[in-house]
Amino acid sequence: MITEEVGMRIKQFRTTKNISQEKLALKADLDRTYIAGVESGKRNLSIKSLEKIILALEVSFEEFFKDM
Amino acid sequence: MITEEVGMRIKQFRTTKNISQEKLALKADLDRTYIAGVESGKRNLSIKSLEKIILALEVSFEEFFKDM
Repeated sequence: MITEEVGMRIKQFRTTKNISQEKLALKADLDRTYIAGVESGKRNLSIKSLEKIILALEVSFEEFFKDM
Repeated sequence: MITEEVGMRIKQFRTTKNISQEKLALKADLDRTYIAGVESGKRNLSIKSLEKIILALEVSFEEFFKDM
């Protein structure tokens, strides 16, 4: 499912960059529990929220969706 | 704004492939007025709706977000 794939990618970039869920949430101006829900694939996030997360992870949309 | 950029890309792929909004809406199982709203950047679409549109356009996520 797309929500799970997006969630896994967020978690993957976040852990590779050694960022905690708390820190990512703060940087993206989102709730920590929201980030947790997104990473577990439970949330059908909007493109605006996804943009916040991608910017906070400091990756490009192209890089984020590579090979997807 | 991200919603405008995504909308422009959808319209660009749709017109390049000579697909009408009606046909895209039917194929993606979405409303024609919804597609129009997305293309004009007025709607903050969810990742699930975006997936439906990208699949209906027969492009990959990677291709869709290239250079973004």
